[in-house]
Amino acid sequence: MTVRIGVVGTGMIGRDHVRRLTRVVAGSRISAVTDVDADAAAAVAAEFGTAAAITVHASGRDVVADPEVDAVLVTSWGPTHEEYVLASIAAGKPVFCEKPLATTQEACLRILEAEVAAGRRLVQVGYMRRYDAAYRALKEVVDSGSIGAPLVVHCAHRNPSVPDWYTRENAINDTAVHEIDVVRWLLGEEIVATTVLAPRRNRHGGELQDPLIVLFETESGVVVDVEVSVNIRYGYDIRAEVVAEDGTAALGDASPVVLRRDGGYTGHVPADWRERFLRAYDVELQEWVDTVAAGAEPAGPSSWDGYAAAVVSDAALEAMRTGVRATVKLADRPQLYAS
Amino acid sequence: MTVRIGVVGTGMIGRDHVRRLTRVVAGSRISAVTDVDADAAAAVAAEFGTAAAITVHASGRDVVADPEVDAVLVTSWGPTHEEYVLASIAAGKPVFCEKPLATTQEACLRILEAEVAAGRRLVQVGYMRRYDAAYRALKEVVDSGSIGAPLVVHCAHRNPSVPDWYTRENAINDTAVHEIDVVRWLLGEEIVATTVLAPRRNRHGGELQDPLIVLFETESGVVVDVEVSVNIRYGYDIRAEVVAEDGTAALGDASPVVLRRDGGYTGHVPADWRERFLRAYDVELQEWVDTVAAGAEPAGPSSWDGYAAAVVSDAALEAMRTGVRATVKLADRPQLYAS
Amino acid sequence: MTVRIGVVGTGMIGRDHVRRLTRVVAGSRISAVTDVDADAAAAVAAEFGTAAAITVHASGRDVVADPEVDAVLVTSWGPTHEEYVLASIAAGKPVFCEKPLATTQEACLRILEAEVAAGRRLVQVGYMRRYDAAYRALKEVVDSGSIGAPLVVHCAHRNPSVPDWYTRENAINDTAVHEIDVVRWLLGEEIVATTVLAPRRNRHGGELQDPLIVLFETESGVVVDVEVSVNIRYGYDIRAEVVAEDGTAALGDASPVVLRRDGGYTGHVPADWRERFLRAYDVELQEWVDTVAAGAEPAGPSSWDGYAAAVVSDAALEAMRTGVRATVKLADRPQLYAS
Amino acid sequence: MTVRIGVVGTGMIGRDHVRRLTRVVAGSRISAVTDVDADAAAAVAAEFGTAAAITVHASGRDVVADPEVDAVLVTSWGPTHEEYVLASIAAGKPVFCEKPLATTQEACLRILEAEVAAGRRLVQVGYMRRYDAAYRALKEVVDSGSIGAPLVVHCAHRNPSVPDWYTRENAINDTAVHEIDVVRWLLGEEIVATTVLAPRRNRHGGELQDPLIVLFETESGVVVDVEVSVNIRYGYDIRAEVVAEDGTAALGDASPVVLRRDGGYTGHVPADWRERFLRAYDVELQEWVDTVAAGAEPAGPSSWDGYAAAVVSDAALEAMRTGVRATVKLADRPQLYAS
Repeated sequence: MTVRIGVVGTGMIGRDHVRRLTRVVAGSRISAVTDVDADAAAAVAAEFGTAAAITVHASGRDVVADPEVDAVLVTSWGPTHEEYVLASIAAGKPVFCEKPLATTQEACLRILEAEVAAGRRLVQVGYMRRYDAAYRALKEVVDSGSIGAPLVVHCAHRNPSVPDWYTRENAINDTAVHEIDVVRWLLGEEIVATTVLAPRRNRHGGELQDPLIVLFETESGVVVDVEVSVNIRYGYDIRAEVVAEDGTAALGDASPVVLRRDGGYTGHVPADWRERFLRAYDVELQEWVDTVAAGAEPAGPSSWDGYAAAVVSDAALEAMRTGVRATVKLADRPQLYAS
Repeated sequence: MTVRIGVVGTGMIGRDHVRRLTRVVAGSRISAVTDVDADAAAAVAAEFGTAAAITVHASGRDVVADPEVDAVLVTSWGPTHEEYVLASIAAGKPVFCEKPLATTQEACLRILEAEVAAGRRLVQVGYMRRYDAAYRALKEVVDSGSIGAPLVVHCAHRNPSVPDWYTRENAINDTAVHEIDVVRWLLGEEIVATTVLAPRRNRHGGELQDPLIVLFETESGVVVDVEVSVNIRYGYDIRAEVVAEDGTAALGDASPVVLRRDGGYTGHVPADWRERFLRAYDVELQEWVDTVAAGAEPAGPSSWDGYAAAVVSDAALEAMRTGVRATVKLADRPQLYAS
Repeated sequence: MTVRIGVVGTGMIGRDHVRRLTRVVAGSRISAVTDVDADAAAAVAAEFGTAAAITVHASGRDVVADPEVDAVLVTSWGPTHEEYVLASIAAGKPVFCEKPLATTQEACLRILEAEVAAGRRLVQVGYMRRYDAAYRALKEVVDSGSIGAPLVVHCAHRNPSVPDWYTRENAINDTAVHEIDVVRWLLGEEIVATTVLAPRRNRHGGELQDPLIVLFETESGVVVDVEVSVNIRYGYDIRAEVVAEDGTAALGDASPVVLRRDGGYTGHVPADWRERFLRAYDVELQEWVDTVAAGAEPAGPSSWDGYAAAVVSDAALEAMRTGVRATVKLADRPQLYAS
Repeated sequence: MTVRIGVVGTGMIGRDHVRRLTRVVAGSRISAVTDVDADAAAAVAAEFGTAAAITVHASGRDVVADPEVDAVLVTSWGPTHEEYVLASIAAGKPVFCEKPLATTQEACLRILEAEVAAGRRLVQVGYMRRYDAAYRALKEVVDSGSIGAPLVVHCAHRNPSVPDWYTRENAINDTAVHEIDVVRWLLGEEIVATTVLAPRRNRHGGELQDPLIVLFETESGVVVDVEVSVNIRYGYDIRAEVVAEDGTAALGDASPVVLRRDGGYTGHVPADWRERFLRAYDVELQEWVDTVAAGAEPAGPSSWDGYAAAVVSDAALEAMRTGVRATVKLADRPQLYAS
């Protein structure tokens, strides 16, 4: 069965997912699109609708309701996510929602409740790192027990630069939020507290507080330190090392080529997140399409994961504001999301 | 346009390509299959024909002739490649032929002549390394000129073990043939001579002459040394370093994870060729499907490349037999294959 | 001029320095020794006094006073360091004192005052990491400005195991104290505050709080995180990465040999501190002997450095006890130690 | 006992060894020097004779004969080595001779005969790589049997540039001669044949045939390939990988620091042979002095090793000249040099 997908939002990420589902991923086709900018939606429909026509709808509601739509992809502006995800749940259609699941904890909770009421998992959230081959290999090592129980995790999230509109809050809810999700997943437990340290500022960031050291503590007591550096110039460098009882496991510096030139041997660091995680996005959507085609529940990040990311992120924002440790208070985890 | 593909030969590699085209690659579907083992063909048709039915034909000729077949994939037994490739050319259909293009130089030449007579490139040969991300990055460095003109290339092709039927000839025409293709492609020039050295034998190989050192010389005088080791136990390790005027560029040891355990830090080496080149096969077929869908000529290894691999491989077999340097005599390169 | 050295304390480290000065370092000889265990001192004198006789004295005071002693090496029990260092200063003799300079801040201050009163630097403290080739190369990069101003430093101090008597306090004043010294030296500034986090415990450490995360803040706002893991089994692994405005510089995994075996490529991690820093001890004493022979002031860690290490270490102990951030209060830095 | 050393030849390398023995190595002092340039000898004596006076002699013969000389260091012009080594043997004094042992096979044989007649080993030749920590670790792995029997060795000897006087013969007898010695030592067997290939020339070398591929075969059939590149610009890079039955062992890229900057992570390659092997020279002379002080036979490269290097080097020169494989014909190995 070819999965027919309706896309709500054809901005940069939406258009890229349309391209991906049309030209990279097997087993699906785009059947409907919409966007607040109707011309943009029409242009995408024209460009990618060559093999089979793509209907352009006036609203996300119409996309969800379209009988030619088997599953929904929400890539609209963050504050509208809740509405389209809830509509998809109401329609009983699988929905893939780009991060964040919603822009407030409360909205996330409403989605959780709707999905629990529906009685089955329909929602997947777009934390794509879980689909990165290196992170998967890292999780495999941790789960194998070969290095013993994890005790500490060292992370670094380094961007070469950020746009002018980027604020210190973004360092938490746009940037470190990826570590929040991936650490919860790697360790298989919740984060219970967080502290944020503000080191000496990088001159390239002007008035921005950059870097940050974000600390997390988990249920079992694992301490996670995350260096967030967003003006480090040299590349997009994502690092993680799990320190455990008998050793450690870290993401490798997996340069495809090593140059020996100019007094050194040099491996390549990705230039940006596209280069680093492009393939993860492909795998993420292929696996989602596969579960939809099979009529199975989504295997990726759930509404619960989207909710937990929002709560931890809010706690870290509070910790940053106050300068002291903030605790994380999660709602009870519904049975639907028992791992 | 969805490309409808007919598959001749549903053995291990054929069945795997059917899976790939059905479940991994976008833009194609399998419309017809055949195999000398009719039951095998029927089983593959049943397993992968769920979205759209797959016709099972009695012969490769029938697959090629099927009007529901836009392009042909030849994955049958080597000695039959010539027949089906020639039939595809005669039918004016794009054909992807797994390596080798044909089992003799003469057969390769007949394919060349047929394609030249057809007046356009229809044939692509399955040398998948050209689609490996690391080799592509290596070629990009070489082509950029940043390390100057290549002078020497060091290669190693290491297998953990080989089956009982594997002979010293296979070390050339099954194993080193990949280096023959990839070195021609990396350097953009032909190989003109070859010598084969037989070092002390690995006890794991019994009577087999393993390892071999295979030397190549190119038109411009680049010397290539290839270590072929096929019982080295530790993993499937493909290495290449281009030594040039201002430095060198080598394939990296791109382990996704580094373990610190038991007195050392350890990166992973692939267990076998599937692990190492799985993704290259995916990219290879996706790009082939894309060119077919676009009505373009294939961008991958051509009939000429298949022919050159056969001639160089024969010369290396002669060099191995005689113990002395053998020269490579290629036919004139038809204009169709001018790079 | 051959420097004649008197050694106070011939226990493990003392005896090793005698061996080093006799058989590895050029330009010195041991002329006198003493130890609380007179037999041990006599045995060392006999073993290493073959080229020129070594006098065995009844006390450290006698060693310092011996006219055949040009310079003093204090390797006795920590609580006695103050006495012998003060005696050496009083005698106007250069003195190399193994760490710690003294066991209390107050004792360190008394040494500072005595040296200031003497009007010239006579004391060097045995923080040998400053003589390690890798740390020196790291400092060279930082000082060159090529990565911009330092903002964050990540350190790990990992021991495979520790003896039964090792306490959580030792994790600070025996283990992390090396990072305290080396970070002050790398950054060229003082530490002003510290916090200690206690992650989930390693089962290999029993009741010991292991690992620890020790955080330091410097005058300019650099944040330093130090992972102290003392039961990590896999080796003695000392790591440091300076994160700066334009990039980072880290100690390399400088394995002399890389093995490809058993599914991976593996570099060696030192088994213990001897293997890791043996050569640093050699260089440390050679350079000290050279300065003494030249009549120059010692170029290594000063009394001030020994004092600062004690104060920061005490603050970290307090932070560990209280669970909250502790500030570091240093006395005014005497002009003698202006850098 | 302090070993009193007489030095014949105070040119660049001689003067450097005088410095080393005076200021780096323990247990020796320089008692006498000579040089064809009497002023140079006097200057060295003045500079390094501060602790104890150094006699300046008119000739090497006088140095050897001086009763204040316990052991001789020959660092004069190559063609004079034979004379001073023979004189030392005749005087029954240990002699350390910089490479080459002598400039012809015949001269080497005369030294062998004299030493055999003397009935004990007195001569050590200055192949310092055997004292390099990384090569020693590599030999330890090979000797441990953990990777099985060696089958192939890949070497590269890369210089950033060479002086104008450097000829293609120097590529063998100045450059590759280090690999000749170190491979014989690593494998513990003799080289029996050699072939030299001439790849495309590096433009930086002008008319010089650079690079070369020098192939060696050993008694047991191990094949060794040595890339000699002497204008590669990027650094002084010495590489070696022993390929064996169960895996491989290679010299590591042991950069003390790794920089993350400008799009990559970069380790340092030594700038020249001094940086790479400085420490090996120190260890070499320390261990030689230790054996002399102990009255033991030298443990380093013997006259036999010096002779074998000359014979293999001559064979490689012949192979280079003729373009075909040359066999190596060694005299019978005297019992004195049985390993």
